Amino acid sequence: MDEVRIIEVKRSIFEDNDRDADKLREECRQSKTFLINLMSSPGAGKTTTLLAVSKALAGRVRLGVMEADIDSAVDAETMLAAGVPAIQIHTGGMCHLDADMTRQGLREFGTEDLDVVVLENVGNLVCPAEFDAGAGKNITILSVPEGHDKPLKYPLMYETCSLLIVNKIDVASYFDFDREKVVAYAKMRNPDIDIIFASAKTGEGIDQIADWIVEKAQEWIR
Amino acid sequence: MDEVRIIEVKRSIFEDNDRDADKLREECRQSKTFLINLMSSPGAGKTTTLLAVSKALAGRVRLGVMEADIDSAVDAETMLAAGVPAIQIHTGGMCHLDADMTRQGLREFGTEDLDVVVLENVGNLVCPAEFDAGAGKNITILSVPEGHDKPLKYPLMYETCSLLIVNKIDVASYFDFDREKVVAYAKMRNPDIDIIFASAKTGEGIDQIADWIVEKAQEWIR
Repeated sequence: MDEVRIIEVKRSIFEDNDRDADKLREECRQSKTFLINLMSSPGAGKTTTLLAVSKALAGRVRLGVMEADIDSAVDAETMLAAGVPAIQIHTGGMCHLDADMTRQGLREFGTEDLDVVVLENVGNLVCPAEFDAGAGKNITILSVPEGHDKPLKYPLMYETCSLLIVNKIDVASYFDFDREKVVAYAKMRNPDIDIIFASAKTGEGIDQIADWIVEKAQEWIR
Repeated sequence: MDEVRIIEVKRSIFEDNDRDADKLREECRQSKTFLINLMSSPGAGKTTTLLAVSKALAGRVRLGVMEADIDSAVDAETMLAAGVPAIQIHTGGMCHLDADMTRQGLREFGTEDLDVVVLENVGNLVCPAEFDAGAGKNITILSVPEGHDKPLKYPLMYETCSLLIVNKIDVASYFDFDREKVVAYAKMRNPDIDIIFASAKTGEGIDQIADWIVEKAQEWIR
């Protein structure tokens, strides 16, 4: 296994993160890199889902992953062990990445040979939603054990995402989780949000997620 | 059911939150109020655990709950419906409470008739750990579905808490959750942390949590 490259990114010097995020989006369009910002609570299954999706994407797009965390490099190690190009970004205690921190990661990573780069943001439903990372699309994962009421409590996360993955659907019967309610609450926040029920364990929904990514990447690179 | 009182707290004007938190701790000691700051990821089971613990505390301490959220009042409604004095604090989009926001909540709540006040912080493992809310003790909940690796990724949360509740232990067999590892990782961050395995659903560990709170409250009020 390759050794994990750890990038220590610095807080942005730009005051206007939104404008810088638009600039990064344009840079990514120019370089034909489709950047996805993947967000969720801690432990919702970002890395595990990404691992499963990476297999479904093999041969269709060239995927790279930037794992952001406050500490540790366990997620990048997991991706590398599965043969997916990956780097670890350390945020220096910050609870989110802004556009320039993301840009620093992309530069260090090198995206020439990649079509799709997934930024796995810090596990947090609040701050990452407030800071536009400059991605082409934002995706959020809600895991069944967290409960169907999360869109009520963390509105911005759902407003800023194009896809909601409802994960760990294989354990739904052990929790009081209402599929219809989670759809209604998420659509209340964002009528245009796509929703896929998935389980990295059983494979449910994984191909659908891969198809969604390929479709959006093709629209982006076109 | 009483109507939920919603307090909109303003961001602190104090630059030095740590000093202000010490001041609030002293104020609470004077007023014989034992303030607990309860933190976790979204959906780890703060409200459900608190509900179960409130029943185990009935007749032993006079409990009140301050529910903090960015939006919605569902948690305070739940507590009130169970007969527990509660208010909802709205943080104005902030991902955590600082000491002065907590003080504003306590003042509006009124703590004369309460021994123990639990502040249920915003669901977030990062920012709430960075801002001392001025509590007598911090408690964190880690739910089994989140995985045993969380202390590796969110070190400060474990360093600042006196009690770790490992929740939803009833579903442990459906997840790859390693009890020994979570204990080792948590103790690595904080050798003095107490750890209780619990399930609000089956009742496991609930009496232990109630005993822990009563013991610490007695030490505080003494």
